[in-house]
Amino acid sequence: MTLTFTPLPQIPLVCPGDNLATLLLTSLQAARITLEDGDIIVVAQKIVSKAENRLVNLCDVTPSKDALDLAKRSEKDPRLVELILRESREVLRVRPGTIIVEHNLGFICASAGIDHSNVRGTEGNPDDWVLLLPEDPDRSAMEIRRNIKIITGNRIGVCIIDSHGRAWRIGTIGMAIGLSGMPGIVDKRGWKDLFGYRLKITIVAAADELAAAASLVMGEAAEGTPAAHVRGFPYQLRESSLKELIRNKKDDLFR
Amino acid sequence: MTLTFTPLPQIPLVCPGDNLATLLLTSLQAARITLEDGDIIVVAQKIVSKAENRLVNLCDVTPSKDALDLAKRSEKDPRLVELILRESREVLRVRPGTIIVEHNLGFICASAGIDHSNVRGTEGNPDDWVLLLPEDPDRSAMEIRRNIKIITGNRIGVCIIDSHGRAWRIGTIGMAIGLSGMPGIVDKRGWKDLFGYRLKITIVAAADELAAAASLVMGEAAEGTPAAHVRGFPYQLRESSLKELIRNKKDDLFR
Repeated sequence: MTLTFTPLPQIPLVCPGDNLATLLLTSLQAARITLEDGDIIVVAQKIVSKAENRLVNLCDVTPSKDALDLAKRSEKDPRLVELILRESREVLRVRPGTIIVEHNLGFICASAGIDHSNVRGTEGNPDDWVLLLPEDPDRSAMEIRRNIKIITGNRIGVCIIDSHGRAWRIGTIGMAIGLSGMPGIVDKRGWKDLFGYRLKITIVAAADELAAAASLVMGEAAEGTPAAHVRGFPYQLRESSLKELIRNKKDDLFR
Repeated sequence: MTLTFTPLPQIPLVCPGDNLATLLLTSLQAARITLEDGDIIVVAQKIVSKAENRLVNLCDVTPSKDALDLAKRSEKDPRLVELILRESREVLRVRPGTIIVEHNLGFICASAGIDHSNVRGTEGNPDDWVLLLPEDPDRSAMEIRRNIKIITGNRIGVCIIDSHGRAWRIGTIGMAIGLSGMPGIVDKRGWKDLFGYRLKITIVAAADELAAAASLVMGEAAEGTPAAHVRGFPYQLRESSLKELIRNKKDDLFR
C-alpha cells in the first residue's frame, strides 16, 4: 500500500486560543481530502505553541546567575539562556552558539527547542519574542485528535513534530515530540525473517520515521505548511506517548 | 504536492551478480508504476550487499587478539567481532550485546552494519553466513541509477538505506548510507521566514528524512519489499554523496 504525505494548504497565521482542529479540518477541505479512519495528521510544534500562547517576551525575563554564566560560555542572550534553563532538566554540551539540553519533556535538543524565527508577539519589538515548546505535546496531540473525532467521527492519529539535530550526522530531521492515537515504537522482537531467523532490527521508531517524512513536505521556509496529512501508515494505530521514544539516561551510551 | 512512497512488490531473493536495476524495473512494472524524471528509488542495503556478494562465512574468519578481547567484553562471536573490526575505523562503545563503531564508510552504527538475519549462503551451515555492507554504497547507488537511465532514459535519484539506532531515542530509523543523483542535505542558510527572520533550522538532512519514510513502507519482517518508489520529493535532484551527511569527528559533541 502506498504511503502518502500531503502538505496542508492555507493554514492562516495561528494566534493564541485558536482551535487547531478547526483550522486543520478547513485546510483538509481546501486540499479536497476527506479524512478516513487510520489517517494521521502531523502538526508542526510551532503552531501548537502559538495556539497555546507559549510566546514569551525576553524583556520580561530576568536571568539568574547560572544563566549569566552559561550565556557567556555559549555567547547567547542571557534572557534566552534563562528560558532554556527553565525548560530543561540538564545541560549536556555547551559551545559558542550551541547549548544542548535534556528538555523537561525528556528528549535531547538544542536550545530547549525555543524558537525565534516566525515568531511575533502582539506588542513591543518583534525581536524580543520567542516561542517555547508546548507544555505537554502528548496532551496537545490528544486534544486535536479528540476535537477532530467530535467533528468528523474519524479515528485518526496525531503527531506533533519539531526539527532536531542529531549526534554524528549533519542536518536536522523531523522528530516526534507529542503523540496521540498512534504508536511511538513498533516492537518486532520475536518476528522472524524469511529463513526463520530472528530480526536484527527489533524496535522501530515508527513515529520518528513518520515525523521525518512529514517534515520533508512541510518544509521550514514559511508557515504556509505547518501540517501534513498522512494516509497508508503501515502499523496499527493505538494509544501511546512520547515516553515510548525516550531512552533512559542510564541506558544511553552517548550522554 | 503529495509525496508518495510505494513498496516495490515481487522482488525475488537476490543472488550475487544479480542486476538490481533490472529487478527494480520489473518490480515497478508489476506495481504499474511508470518512472518519471525526478522520482527516487530507495533500496535496502541488504539486497545491494547480496548482489555484490558481500556474504562471508564465519568459518573462514580467524579472529585477531583484539577481536578475542572485544568478543569477551561484548559477549559476541569472536569471528563476527573480527569482521566488525575490519569494517570499522574506531570502536566507540562496548556493552554486553552491543558494539558501536565508526564504520569505514564514516557513519556511526552498531556491529558495523553486519547482518545475520535473512542471510543464507550457498553451502555449509546457514547460521555461519553474515552479510557486510556494500563496499561503496554511493557507487552502488550510482550504478543502479546509471543502469536505469540506460534502460528507461529517466533521470532519477537512488538512495541506499539501512536501519540505524540513535543516541538518546529508542528504536531504529531508516538512514541513508549511499546516494546518487539526489541531495544528502539541503542548506537553507540565508532563507528567510514570513517575517524576514533567518531560519532557526538551516541544514536539513533531506536524504535521511526520505530514508526514514521509505523504511516505514519497506518494513523489516521479510524481504518482500526491499525497495520503494518515491514521487514528489520536494527538493531539486543533484549530484551528491553520503559524505554530505557525515559530521566530522572534531565537530561532533557526542563521540
